[in-house]
Amino acid sequence: MGDMQLVGSDSAKLASALTRIERDVDAVFDALLPVPEDTRSSLVEAMRYSAMDGGKRVRPLLLVATAEMLGVSRDPALRAACAVESIHVYSLIHDDLPCMDDDDMRRGKPTLHKKFDEATAVLAGDSLHALAFEILTDPATTTDPFTQAELVRTLAMASGMNGMAGGQVMDMAAESADYDLHTITRLQQLKTGALLAASVEMGAILGKLPPEGRSHLRAYSRDIGLAFQIADDLLDAEGDEEKAGKALRKDDAQGKQTFVSLMGADAARAQAHALVDQAAGHLVQYGEDAAILRALAGYIVERDR
Amino acid sequence: MGDMQLVGSDSAKLASALTRIERDVDAVFDALLPVPEDTRSSLVEAMRYSAMDGGKRVRPLLLVATAEMLGVSRDPALRAACAVESIHVYSLIHDDLPCMDDDDMRRGKPTLHKKFDEATAVLAGDSLHALAFEILTDPATTTDPFTQAELVRTLAMASGMNGMAGGQVMDMAAESADYDLHTITRLQQLKTGALLAASVEMGAILGKLPPEGRSHLRAYSRDIGLAFQIADDLLDAEGDEEKAGKALRKDDAQGKQTFVSLMGADAARAQAHALVDQAAGHLVQYGEDAAILRALAGYIVERDR
Repeated sequence: MGDMQLVGSDSAKLASALTRIERDVDAVFDALLPVPEDTRSSLVEAMRYSAMDGGKRVRPLLLVATAEMLGVSRDPALRAACAVESIHVYSLIHDDLPCMDDDDMRRGKPTLHKKFDEATAVLAGDSLHALAFEILTDPATTTDPFTQAELVRTLAMASGMNGMAGGQVMDMAAESADYDLHTITRLQQLKTGALLAASVEMGAILGKLPPEGRSHLRAYSRDIGLAFQIADDLLDAEGDEEKAGKALRKDDAQGKQTFVSLMGADAARAQAHALVDQAAGHLVQYGEDAAILRALAGYIVERDR
Repeated sequence: MGDMQLVGSDSAKLASALTRIERDVDAVFDALLPVPEDTRSSLVEAMRYSAMDGGKRVRPLLLVATAEMLGVSRDPALRAACAVESIHVYSLIHDDLPCMDDDDMRRGKPTLHKKFDEATAVLAGDSLHALAFEILTDPATTTDPFTQAELVRTLAMASGMNGMAGGQVMDMAAESADYDLHTITRLQQLKTGALLAASVEMGAILGKLPPEGRSHLRAYSRDIGLAFQIADDLLDAEGDEEKAGKALRKDDAQGKQTFVSLMGADAARAQAHALVDQAAGHLVQYGEDAAILRALAGYIVERDR
């Protein structure tokens, strides 16, 4: 967790929850990805390399913490969390490709296409994409077909052309387009916000919270999604490459408009902190049960990777 | 349908069914893919370019013909068929990439990364992948969550590491590995057979046929899957590039073992025709209702593209 500074009991709970979710997500992926004894072994080794590589696991923790807050037992929530993380990991693999962001390092290690090759990276991403939907329709996650279908729909919508992938296309166009703050916000809601929001939503689905009961959680997701992207932009502008484990200063080099370039670093930082406070405010009705979600909002803007 | 020669009334039904499914699949994709008025427009244009490009629509017809044989109305079957075709099209887009098969032509047109660019091709493939699962969990396809979940699981399993993507990895390794006929058959079952079988299975799911009632249809799928790949190998070895609309003679150039290289062209052709007869035999209990599936088995080995 790097140099994160946290105070109070919420922070202690978060630190322990982050350690635990990292271990648990790795264990689920380990069980889901046995290496076959044929020429597909390189594919599965590649999937394991990226899926079990020490990511922060923000999305899995959002999902599991939401589900546990609503009384869901940990195992089904963890499996659904690994479905979301599968989507996140596949998107990082494809994003890092030479024809996309062309990144050589990720989380302090060579990116997948550097460690293996580009073809394996494309197919490992595609296979993690499919794995997400296999997990969600596996009886080991939930035997309730209504819940399965709602989880699938939420994740597919958040990751496709009207979610993450659409946001990535808008982001690619940012080098030549002259986006204003409104458009940057919309881009972020798709590129990063959609999957973060889906994580919380899927926790609520597992918790059998009906859609009309999810408005506070959705407001929380909206705020932390925006705060997350502002923090990412600040990290790109001001962060330490070694701690981040990846190349930084890319937005500026590519001439992309970001929250930082449009607002200035100080105003962006103030905005991120205001959003964290606002996000916490949406959880009042959950009291002490929301401790981890509250602390996670703070972590999202304080992280150094 | 090129120079396909068909005789008899089944053939007339097939010809009409192929024309109709091409038009219907294009219409569903047209409705599913409105071009947005923001910088995502290039992404959606790219998805339309590949999804509405005059493919043979074998998988959609397999699904719709199976569903209609079981009394399902056409509209939901067509939507599920477009989910399967979305997966098929995304796999072609990614397969054609320079780091994969590096193909410039597909169906007589420039491949997507040639027409647009590689980054758009990666993301258009990813977006079509997600679209498949959006379609299957859309109430317009079916409002029954049990059916939605079963459709999703069938398609996700058929397309991931234990299906199509796994088969593609085995196929990539075929250049250096010395596969025997048993391994080539296994490779084919994953790479091509899994998605063809999923098409029939999804028709059966929509038709509410319980798993224990699907054994004849599964036997049919197994036979046509193998016949399809043998026909593909024969097309690669002996076909006309102009009619095929893509580069041929690739297996031999890459030193890949195929059914044709291992069995010889004549024996492979005989085997394909025997499989078609055997496939038709599994449909006896459906009588005249199975006319299209029977004729489709023959088309699969007679096609010239």
